[in-house]
Parts: sequence; structure tokens; C-alpha cells
Amino acid sequence: MPIVQIDFVEGRTVDQKRDIAKKVTQAICESANCPPEAVTIILRDLPATNFARAGVLRIDR
Amino acid sequence: MPIVQIDFVEGRTVDQKRDIAKKVTQAICESANCPPEAVTIILRDLPATNFARAGVLRIDR
Amino acid sequence: MPIVQIDFVEGRTVDQKRDIAKKVTQAICESANCPPEAVTIILRDLPATNFARAGVLRIDR
Amino acid sequence: MPIVQIDFVEGRTVDQKRDIAKKVTQAICESANCPPEAVTIILRDLPATNFARAGVLRIDR
Amino acid sequence: MPIVQIDFVEGRTVDQKRDIAKKVTQAICESANCPPEAVTIILRDLPATNFARAGVLRIDR
Amino acid sequence: MPIVQIDFVEGRTVDQKRDIAKKVTQAICESANCPPEAVTIILRDLPATNFARAGVLRIDR
Repeated sequence: MPIVQIDFVEGRTVDQKRDIAKKVTQAICESANCPPEAVTIILRDLPATNFARAGVLRIDR
Repeated sequence: MPIVQIDFVEGRTVDQKRDIAKKVTQAICESANCPPEAVTIILRDLPATNFARAGVLRIDR
Repeated sequence: MPIVQIDFVEGRTVDQKRDIAKKVTQAICESANCPPEAVTIILRDLPATNFARAGVLRIDR
Repeated sequence: MPIVQIDFVEGRTVDQKRDIAKKVTQAICESANCPPEAVTIILRDLPATNFARAGVLRIDR
Repeated sequence: MPIVQIDFVEGRTVDQKRDIAKKVTQAICESANCPPEAVTIILRDLPATNFARAGVLRIDR
Repeated sequence: MPIVQIDFVEGRTVDQKRDIAKKVTQAICESANCPPEAVTIILRDLPATNFARAGVLRIDR
């Protein structure tokens, strides 16, 4: 019963999200040997002001 | 000190959120034997493009 | 399709977890008007060294 | 910079986790058009007492 | 490779987020002895309808 | 009311966790202008088999 949460910087299209949902589910089912119905995916779009690496916001890179 | 995170597809009214906060807190306090002040709840509203089960986005069902 | 994550300090029995699962699901279904099958709950047990409020670990209170 | 969190019931081998890391990263890079270095994955193993659907713990099914 | 997620009620300015990113990264690097490049931070802004303590939404306090 | 979640590879001592709790709370209070009592921190220790970057588990680097 994998629960997958993906946070990324906003800007993906609905088609990209559709593709992520399909391919990530396939990847987990193949690797973890579970049926697709068991996989739940949550996507969260973050503004570029809300993501940092090495102490620097994405908007400042 | 339970921390509760609830992600659901957007569309709940403020009254529904008020009710969820009250009843989920009661449920946890009764079950886990803790005072209401110890319970923190975060709600996150997801667009229907951002939730998938079985590899299919909610908007495509 | 609510996804519920609950983090608390370890020490709850299996019976308490069973009760939390049942009552939190009921609370959400009543408030958000969804069927029980739509509710997924994850519980995470934290050691008392891994929880802090006001900058102080739970083991130091 | 996708951050992926996967919670599942414990019991996956290290080889399965290696496979999940590789394939989920590939799936996201293809779909979201990002380099593999941008993808971070966290896996969390849950005991079967800590996962519920429809108000019932996994150990009781 | 610390992954930091911070959920708070919306209303922080970009300058405040910039400051949080910088100072939280420094705090973790000093305490956990890791390079800044290893620290990833996600910020999530919650409306005041989506945060509760003691069973009461933030908007009702 | 910031809620902070930090996932890192296991191996930090209790003293390091104590220091993280104190300094991260200070950093957030200074930046976001809130009292220490408002800050809750959860730490999660991950085995090196459960963390990946660029599709490769930490144990394989």
C-alpha cells in the first residue's frame, strides 16, 4: 500500500502530472511487486519562493 | 503530542474543515489518551490534477 | 480520498492504534462526507528524543 | 528539484529499495524533464500495525 | 542529507522565507555537522482555515 | 505555528538532536517573528538503505 508524496517547483503541465502518475506507479509496482490499485500518489506544487537548497531560495539562483 | 496531516482533494467548506478539526481531535484524544491541547492538525487542499490512484489522476476518473 | 499522517511519541499499544484508525476514519467520513474506503491512515512512532516543542526535546521535559 | 517520500509496509529487501530508487527517479526525470541529480527519495518502512485503510489496520485484514 | 519540511500559516514575506532558508540551514549544519549543500528545505503556506490546535481552526481563535 | 519535519540518515546523537531542536527553533523564531512555544519539531532517522539521490541509495555511494 505505498503512499507516494512528491513536492516539486510549480510549472508542470497536467500532461506531465498524468505521465508522472502513470510511470511512477509502474516503477513502484515492478520494484515492490504490488498491484497498481495499491499505489496512491499526492503531488504538491511549490512556488519558487518556497524551495531552498544550501540555504538559498530557488528564486535567487 | 500528535501531529496530524490530512491531504485531500479541494472542495471542502470551512464548516467541514471546522468539523474535521473538532472530531479528529476528539477521536485521537479518546483513543490515545491525551489532552486536546496536544493535538495539532494541518489540512492541505489538493487540486484534482494532483492526486492519483492506480496510476490515474483524479481528474481522469 | 483523504490521506492522513499521524506522528506521535511511541508508546501506544496496538489496541490504541486500532481505535485511532477506526475513530479517525469515522470522524473524517462524517465531516467530509466520504466513504470509509477512501480514507488511508499512516501512523509513525517517534522516540522521545525525536520530538521537540519550544526548542526542547520531549526527553528533557 | 522533486522530493519524493514513499511510505509502505515494511518487508521490502534492500534490492527492492535499490530498484525503486532507480526506477522512480527515471520515471520522474522522463515525465518532468529534470536531471537525475535533482531527485531525492526518502523511503519509510511502516510496521503493519501502523497502516490502515477503511478504518482497519493492515494486521487485521 | 537532511530534508526539512516547514508548514506554517501563510503571510510570511519572501524576505522572511529567504531568512528562514539561510538560518535554518546554518542551524542544521552546525548541529549535525554537514555541508550546506546537503540541506534541502520545503516551505508550505497554509491558509488559516487549514490549521488547528486543540480542535479549533486558527481562523476561529 | 510552524511545524517542522526533518528527515535525515540515522547516526545523530541525542546531543546533536538537542542542539538541532534548540537552534532550528531560534532560527525560525528570529526569521518568522514567532514565540518559541509555537514551534514544533519532528525528527525522523532513516537507515542508509532508505535514502537516495540521483537514483542511487546512500549505502551504495
